[in-house]
Amino acid sequence: MKDKVKNAVLKFGMIKELPCKITVALSGGADSVALLYSLWFLKDELQIELSACHVNHNLRGDESDGDEMFVRRMCRLLDIPLYVRNIKVLDYVSKHESVELVARKIRYDFFSELGADRLIATAHTASDNCETVLINLIRGTALSGMCGIPPKRDNIIRPLIDCTREDIENFCKEYSLPYVTDSTNLSTDYTRNKLRINIIPELKKINPSLVTSISRMSQSVALDDLYLDDIAKRELEKARKDGKYSVLALQSLDECILRRAVAMIFDENDIPIGSLALANAVQIIRDGKGKINPCQYKFLQIRKKYLSVITDTEKFRRN
Amino acid sequence: MKDKVKNAVLKFGMIKELPCKITVALSGGADSVALLYSLWFLKDELQIELSACHVNHNLRGDESDGDEMFVRRMCRLLDIPLYVRNIKVLDYVSKHESVELVARKIRYDFFSELGADRLIATAHTASDNCETVLINLIRGTALSGMCGIPPKRDNIIRPLIDCTREDIENFCKEYSLPYVTDSTNLSTDYTRNKLRINIIPELKKINPSLVTSISRMSQSVALDDLYLDDIAKRELEKARKDGKYSVLALQSLDECILRRAVAMIFDENDIPIGSLALANAVQIIRDGKGKINPCQYKFLQIRKKYLSVITDTEKFRRN
Repeated sequence: MKDKVKNAVLKFGMIKELPCKITVALSGGADSVALLYSLWFLKDELQIELSACHVNHNLRGDESDGDEMFVRRMCRLLDIPLYVRNIKVLDYVSKHESVELVARKIRYDFFSELGADRLIATAHTASDNCETVLINLIRGTALSGMCGIPPKRDNIIRPLIDCTREDIENFCKEYSLPYVTDSTNLSTDYTRNKLRINIIPELKKINPSLVTSISRMSQSVALDDLYLDDIAKRELEKARKDGKYSVLALQSLDECILRRAVAMIFDENDIPIGSLALANAVQIIRDGKGKINPCQYKFLQIRKKYLSVITDTEKFRRN
Repeated sequence: MKDKVKNAVLKFGMIKELPCKITVALSGGADSVALLYSLWFLKDELQIELSACHVNHNLRGDESDGDEMFVRRMCRLLDIPLYVRNIKVLDYVSKHESVELVARKIRYDFFSELGADRLIATAHTASDNCETVLINLIRGTALSGMCGIPPKRDNIIRPLIDCTREDIENFCKEYSLPYVTDSTNLSTDYTRNKLRINIIPELKKINPSLVTSISRMSQSVALDDLYLDDIAKRELEKARKDGKYSVLALQSLDECILRRAVAMIFDENDIPIGSLALANAVQIIRDGKGKINPCQYKFLQIRKKYLSVITDTEKFRRN
């Protein structure tokens, strides 16, 4: 597994400057423990200045505190710095957000507070990626959903992205690594658990290398997606003029680039991206005229060969 | 369902010249009967000159002959021409090919014998497409596998590509359409049946609109794939010189375009496309030197900044 981790770190250019500060997001579960140890084994070879961080969400009472203690002892044993955030997640949960979402936000806020001069390594595996790709596929997605979990984004890196759950289990067994088990782990995400427990084992009967096959696909598709997005971004800049977009320039684009450019227009104007709204926007561009209302308070309108996004308040002011 | 068929015919530009000769590939099963009738309902509106064709593979004894008779009567009732090929498929099966593959080849040969002045409509549905996409995903594929069944290729069109199996069932019920059931239908393809019977129903519990979602995804991905292939084709032409390929020109390409160009080089030199062989070929191009043996009798070699494909016999002659 050390080789798989090393190859992923190099292949995806996870490390740029040497020596490199890497902080492992350490929950204490098997994945993050395997991540910590594999980087610990590689730290001299890859010139890594290793540390760890842990968020105690206080969601599981004594169990949460036990996990924190477990993680503290592991870092003491390996003699690496540990940054801990102890936070009562439930205090921050509102009606509109799930506990998982809030916990995730707190975690990622903590990561960015740790400083931009370091990389945060999270323990997402090829098996997680496989589940994510299948979830996106099942729920309905465009190409981007097929890209799965990015191996690297901003200062977050995922060195285990080419390791399967079996690799992790074997690695933990090989070195008798201790880890904690989250008693709620099996009940957080209905769809993901259904996939993991019922569906993926069935798919593996068809192709035992399912996880690796899907990883390979998603990494290849991610390159395609990035390339197409770059083209769309460039074309959108060419079409942009005084906060509006030239319809003639947009009309000249291939369908697949136009769709992406329109999605970018939605994104920069805080319009939620839905397939029907996108199709309607593409249609008025192709028609060279028209007006649509893709979401509350927002209108896309073509006037004098320019597409503009107007919000309701502006509209009322004009009329 | 008639609307879905009409929309698909128009959206994918299935019909070009009017009036248009369309021959439905009619097995007698529910899908192809629904296809025949929906086009029959639309024939005046879309100016279709409708006919049908049927291949009696003689694989199921009396049942095969019964199907042929059923189809003959249906076309007599609708007063449309029927072209029948009666062939003993088993006489053409060799050790190297499956019965399904030979039957398919015979069918498509028959279609092309019917003449280039007509379109052949096959009854592939959104449900078939969903299965195909999932099979490709599970077995391991690049972007192209995610495109599923093309709505139109050469003179083959698939007007039911946006209809689900439920649409077909409802349509057959609505008009009390008779159809035959292939007694072997449930046992021809292990993977497809496993998906259809065990896995897809589970996935539909997560997303009841699974088939439509996957259709939408595969149609959007098909546009991306076509666009990227077009770029790769153009770049490959620029790199081509005297039957060889300029390594400098190939090195200048983005990774995703280079991979496609290399796949095209494999294809035009009858080298089977496998992910490992492709990756190795990309590697020697990036290195600017090297030689690989992607399959028996074939070598890819870089000499004097040009990549060439040589076969074993040539190699022996040179050495």
